[in-house]
Amino acid sequence: MSNFGFAKLRAVNPYEASFHEARSAVGAAPLLKEAETFPTVAEAVADCELVVGTTAARNRELHQPLKTLSEAAPILRKRLGSGRVALLFGSEKRGLSNADLSHCHWLLRIPTREGHASMNLGQAVAVCLYELTSGRAIERARGTSPARESAKLSPARAAELERITSLLLEALQASGYLGKRAEVKEDKIRRMVRRLDLSAADAEVWLGMLRQIIWKLGSR
Amino acid sequence: MSNFGFAKLRAVNPYEASFHEARSAVGAAPLLKEAETFPTVAEAVADCELVVGTTAARNRELHQPLKTLSEAAPILRKRLGSGRVALLFGSEKRGLSNADLSHCHWLLRIPTREGHASMNLGQAVAVCLYELTSGRAIERARGTSPARESAKLSPARAAELERITSLLLEALQASGYLGKRAEVKEDKIRRMVRRLDLSAADAEVWLGMLRQIIWKLGSR
Repeated sequence: MSNFGFAKLRAVNPYEASFHEARSAVGAAPLLKEAETFPTVAEAVADCELVVGTTAARNRELHQPLKTLSEAAPILRKRLGSGRVALLFGSEKRGLSNADLSHCHWLLRIPTREGHASMNLGQAVAVCLYELTSGRAIERARGTSPARESAKLSPARAAELERITSLLLEALQASGYLGKRAEVKEDKIRRMVRRLDLSAADAEVWLGMLRQIIWKLGSR
Repeated sequence: MSNFGFAKLRAVNPYEASFHEARSAVGAAPLLKEAETFPTVAEAVADCELVVGTTAARNRELHQPLKTLSEAAPILRKRLGSGRVALLFGSEKRGLSNADLSHCHWLLRIPTREGHASMNLGQAVAVCLYELTSGRAIERARGTSPARESAKLSPARAAELERITSLLLEALQASGYLGKRAEVKEDKIRRMVRRLDLSAADAEVWLGMLRQIIWKLGSR
């Protein structure tokens, strides 16, 4: 991260002992010192406008769009110009869970060979951040400044999307749509809300509509 | 190396104890087992047609042409097609010596930020091999079209979007969200539903959820 100029490390529920004892490489001490920890993925990404999960994409049925790193990089660079972007990495052993991935707008994959897809965590991070930064000079030369989008069209933040998810789940619960296996459906609903690709302005409207519907469902 | 499909690891005068005790990551055992050791750089690269050294290029007067990784990659790929190419990495602490570098045809550098140029060895290797294999041109030529999108992801048709709009309006009416000027809001809701950019599959789910909510709103 430090090599490529990324400063904000956020750890979700890290193994405290290792995390506190972690010694940084020469040059990266400030980054590690300022790393923040969060109890949940939802809280870690709350202020981000785009959340992208990384996956080796093996043995798993993916429920979200998957892009290769080189396809993803120009999109990520553009969005980094206008708001916070979270790149989510899982633990080295198990990667990200389906629940973790449900917080993501889409997923990216580093193209590795079929027989050995899963990468070392630090190497995966380095490769992603290299790809993200190595195009900058090119873009700058091209003069493709990220189209300044009006505030109205700026994307909803993860915290708003999570609020919509909660309210929608509440409305579905109250209406009897969610049956016995509500916990199974929660991830599905969360992913579906991310796919809506809501603007901040539309997110406000949806929140208002859902609140009214829930109020009415409860007032019978 | 194993992730990106490179099989030949050659170590020059490694610290024997560490090298023999090194345990490979899952999946990379064959590579490590077949690694060869050489007493000198000259012997290690003897059968190679191109030798390229890696350097952070700080505090050092370089005597050879220096290319960035992205400049170097297409050349390396081309040469890999016709003969053996050696990519030389130094020890993590000191990098390659001037003597080591003297065996190189030219040098390459991973563009890192000025304040923190020197990279972790494993990460530097991963970044270089990623760039060598992931060339966009190659991907395109190979015909690896971005994840074949299933019919599941085909966009919803206008008729489905209109059905969602109707049901949403009905739910908003029943909940009291739409006030007196319902006709004014209808267009707004219709446009908002179009902005969701729904897939056909998601449209079905939204229809089901809305029907259930409306049923519940009406059954009070």
